[in-house]
Amino acid sequence: MTPMERVEHAAKVNKTREAFTPFIESPSARHHPAGAREAGKARFDGLLGTSFHLNQPGESGRTGAETSPYTGESLGIDYPHCQVDALLEGVRDAWAPWKQARPSERVAVCADILEAWSQDVFANAYATMHTAGQAFMLSFAGSGASSLDRGLEALAAAHSAMADVPESTVFERRFGRGEPVVLHKRYRLVPVGIALVFSCGSYPAWNAYPAILANLATGNPVVLKPHPDTILPMAMAVKTARTVLANAGFNPNLLVLACDTWDAPVAEDILAHDDVAIVDFTGGQSYGRHLEKAYAHKQVYTETAGCNAVVIDSVDDVDAVCRALATGLSLFSAQMCTAPQNLWLSAAGVLTPEGRLSVDDFVTKLIAAIDALCTAHGPAVCGALHSARTVDDLRAAEQAGTVVRKSSSYDHPDFPGARTATPLLVRVDAAERAVVQREHFGPIGFILVAQDRDDALSKATSDARSFGAIASYAYTTDNTWMETVQDAFADAGASVGINLIRQAPMNFTAAFSDFHVTGLNPAGTACLTDAAFVARRFRIVQSKVEQPLHS
Amino acid sequence: MTPMERVEHAAKVNKTREAFTPFIESPSARHHPAGAREAGKARFDGLLGTSFHLNQPGESGRTGAETSPYTGESLGIDYPHCQVDALLEGVRDAWAPWKQARPSERVAVCADILEAWSQDVFANAYATMHTAGQAFMLSFAGSGASSLDRGLEALAAAHSAMADVPESTVFERRFGRGEPVVLHKRYRLVPVGIALVFSCGSYPAWNAYPAILANLATGNPVVLKPHPDTILPMAMAVKTARTVLANAGFNPNLLVLACDTWDAPVAEDILAHDDVAIVDFTGGQSYGRHLEKAYAHKQVYTETAGCNAVVIDSVDDVDAVCRALATGLSLFSAQMCTAPQNLWLSAAGVLTPEGRLSVDDFVTKLIAAIDALCTAHGPAVCGALHSARTVDDLRAAEQAGTVVRKSSSYDHPDFPGARTATPLLVRVDAAERAVVQREHFGPIGFILVAQDRDDALSKATSDARSFGAIASYAYTTDNTWMETVQDAFADAGASVGINLIRQAPMNFTAAFSDFHVTGLNPAGTACLTDAAFVARRFRIVQSKVEQPLHS
Repeated sequence: MTPMERVEHAAKVNKTREAFTPFIESPSARHHPAGAREAGKARFDGLLGTSFHLNQPGESGRTGAETSPYTGESLGIDYPHCQVDALLEGVRDAWAPWKQARPSERVAVCADILEAWSQDVFANAYATMHTAGQAFMLSFAGSGASSLDRGLEALAAAHSAMADVPESTVFERRFGRGEPVVLHKRYRLVPVGIALVFSCGSYPAWNAYPAILANLATGNPVVLKPHPDTILPMAMAVKTARTVLANAGFNPNLLVLACDTWDAPVAEDILAHDDVAIVDFTGGQSYGRHLEKAYAHKQVYTETAGCNAVVIDSVDDVDAVCRALATGLSLFSAQMCTAPQNLWLSAAGVLTPEGRLSVDDFVTKLIAAIDALCTAHGPAVCGALHSARTVDDLRAAEQAGTVVRKSSSYDHPDFPGARTATPLLVRVDAAERAVVQREHFGPIGFILVAQDRDDALSKATSDARSFGAIASYAYTTDNTWMETVQDAFADAGASVGINLIRQAPMNFTAAFSDFHVTGLNPAGTACLTDAAFVARRFRIVQSKVEQPLHS
Repeated sequence: MTPMERVEHAAKVNKTREAFTPFIESPSARHHPAGAREAGKARFDGLLGTSFHLNQPGESGRTGAETSPYTGESLGIDYPHCQVDALLEGVRDAWAPWKQARPSERVAVCADILEAWSQDVFANAYATMHTAGQAFMLSFAGSGASSLDRGLEALAAAHSAMADVPESTVFERRFGRGEPVVLHKRYRLVPVGIALVFSCGSYPAWNAYPAILANLATGNPVVLKPHPDTILPMAMAVKTARTVLANAGFNPNLLVLACDTWDAPVAEDILAHDDVAIVDFTGGQSYGRHLEKAYAHKQVYTETAGCNAVVIDSVDDVDAVCRALATGLSLFSAQMCTAPQNLWLSAAGVLTPEGRLSVDDFVTKLIAAIDALCTAHGPAVCGALHSARTVDDLRAAEQAGTVVRKSSSYDHPDFPGARTATPLLVRVDAAERAVVQREHFGPIGFILVAQDRDDALSKATSDARSFGAIASYAYTTDNTWMETVQDAFADAGASVGINLIRQAPMNFTAAFSDFHVTGLNPAGTACLTDAAFVARRFRIVQSKVEQPLHS
């Protein structure tokens, strides 16, 4: 498929929501040109300890202080620090030809950007690994292919929304007696302003690609503000995209990188500009809420966090379920917005074909599954902890209840200095569960015991409604109760996945098929990728000209 | 066409923007069943001096103080005054089955509402005439057919947006080795909350119908707050729709009327409720801006007002242009959001096939056209002034510059007490034109003379950008400059109609074809009817269930 054929096909699949995997998910050598992985690794290595140049306006110094979660060492890369007013002035100067380009031309350039990103996926995977902390496999498949998928999905959604408005029409009707009046109408799709896109520290591409492409396709220039600890993969993506823009004859300042540090954040300075009309944010709930409130007069699209629940009622294969849960709790050390956190059980335990398994026995099996997984595949599954603060959170969470599985670091064969942790499991009293009513960013799971399954469902959905949930899960073999579960989560404005065992990992989210974030609970306002995500990024200005009667 | 066939056809035309006029625009007897007009008139007459009952929750008294702009007399109709908390409680109680109904079922009920409204169009026209002040013909064609068209357009847009999301899908893909995994996914479209719809005093149905139907179709209950001077046509529409809802097996409190008075407004009390999530407002710019700012955390859709300009450069038939302008300035006494207000001329005058016509000569011709129109057709064209305040505004505007045509009342043959006025024309210095940089609601036109056509275009578009414009106009026979005009208005975020002569009236706006309001200038945020108008009124909650391996 050509890049544009990919967009056209994605636009169709967006409306059927069937499976579609246009980008290669496996890093295996047989799917790639000879030496692709090695070349990507070499490219990443070559960037270490160098200055990353973007040739952006307003550069007033250098910044950047990334440390690899695997080596504990600085990447030694510095990035442009740009004076905000001058940077935005440069963005504004770049805008007019892009704004005036036909939507289909912009979509085609965006399709080429996506294609260029897909060519750089090995190098970007290493960059993601050594900033976000993902294991290589996830950084390739998740921050690579799945994020490209999500970017394509958003691009296709923008394409569909724009293509639904014709460029022109001939309007003919009679007004009273006499010959029909002919009006030649033209509809221009006009972008609304500069977009500030925040990429997050742990999984930057997955939300940044859709936001960048939805904005660019609809004509809005983008300022990308990466998380200060995870700049490199975004800097690489921005540089690649700027080259594509320039090669297409446009000013590359349609997409700029605004780096900052923890000590000197730049976002609020950027947001103070009235022509920054769009905010796309992925990150913590408190800053996300601040953006939603303080900038409500702009378009604010957020994905933040919630307290994802799993309600476990009954299972066909308890070991398979425990393996699925172990993976969900361990994958990338649960530093994913879809990772399960609050495991709800009935006091009577879990129903299995062999009879009821008590809570304690179920937890024992779950612990065994986690132990087995982390022992056999710790480095590949858990990756590293993105932030040193997660180590503190783990210590704090141990005090929240009864620890049933301690977290410990595991030894990484390639990176002895890696910041690692296996899942902590803490049993918390369901009646005093304030501690579980927020996201714990890291490998922290809570065991919560309710009176019965309906009580578990009621408490899990109540928490989703009040505190947010991005993904929720349930296991039940009772088809009638399965309907109850779906209704209850829907009523709480939360999506739910049921009996996910062979879908691996359980928290896999498929672009083109799974809608991500509902906007109906406190875990964010933006859904990847529905019409609402794209429809307001452009407005329609029309002109109509009456044809002279005898022309 | 059945009501649903009409929706399906409208959904197609929404994307071609061609002419489509499904509802009958002419009140002529040959298009309607025998006696339809007389029956409508009798129905209206029968409502005068009575209590209008809606059987709504929380009724705590009676309200209503409407006066006919034609007779100067009270309509003598009282309406329920409902205690806000109890009214909203009733709305909430009605919600669940509507929320859970399939989108296609809700759309079908909405199509039936539209059909029921169309059956009551004569009575509603008289109600509109004697509250808004429209002449009968406009109240039938504009508040009748054209408003029904606009309602259908919005309903069809909501239908399309919802139909783009499948109810379910079967997702099948391989995760690693082994047999493919099959997931049964279900996508529920969930409404976001109660909508408060404000209808305006002068042209209530045109925005209320689209807002009511876009909200109901997407599952959101509606509280309709009519302008205190124009309750009756909305009360009738609400009553009709409530009957349709009840006949379809739903609780009629999905649509309620919240009447108020100038002295005791209820809107802010309603807006204080968190579950009022949507605001649709049509009315004045200052209250509209207040809503946009104070309730930015809700979805706020506004259409307010601007200072609509006409740039007159060159014409083929100066008399025809003057007749078109005379109609635009006179129709419903320019109490329409699309009425022209600021007439921009070059100092050198207007180019015609017979040579240049000086500004004074052009104005003389325009005055003659207005005089002729108002003398011949005053009652049918001008209708009545909705508000007594407009009389004050006319007196004030006389002081704004040099009066070139005085406004006077005209004698209405049927209603000697009618509040009427023919257009006032005032010449204002273009350099000191603050007075023209806002909407003057009523038959007030300003003559502004610029250095040349580019100066005129520049000033007109600058005012549109800074102060708003809902409709803008230009007359030019220069095809090259016509492109400049279209670019300049587009750059100001304003739609423009060029050389509108035989399209009658010049400020006619066609549902399914003309996009109304751009959202890019201060005249409002909502466009009738684009995807952005409907896409956020619902959100998507999904559930997915993994199929057991051997089932």
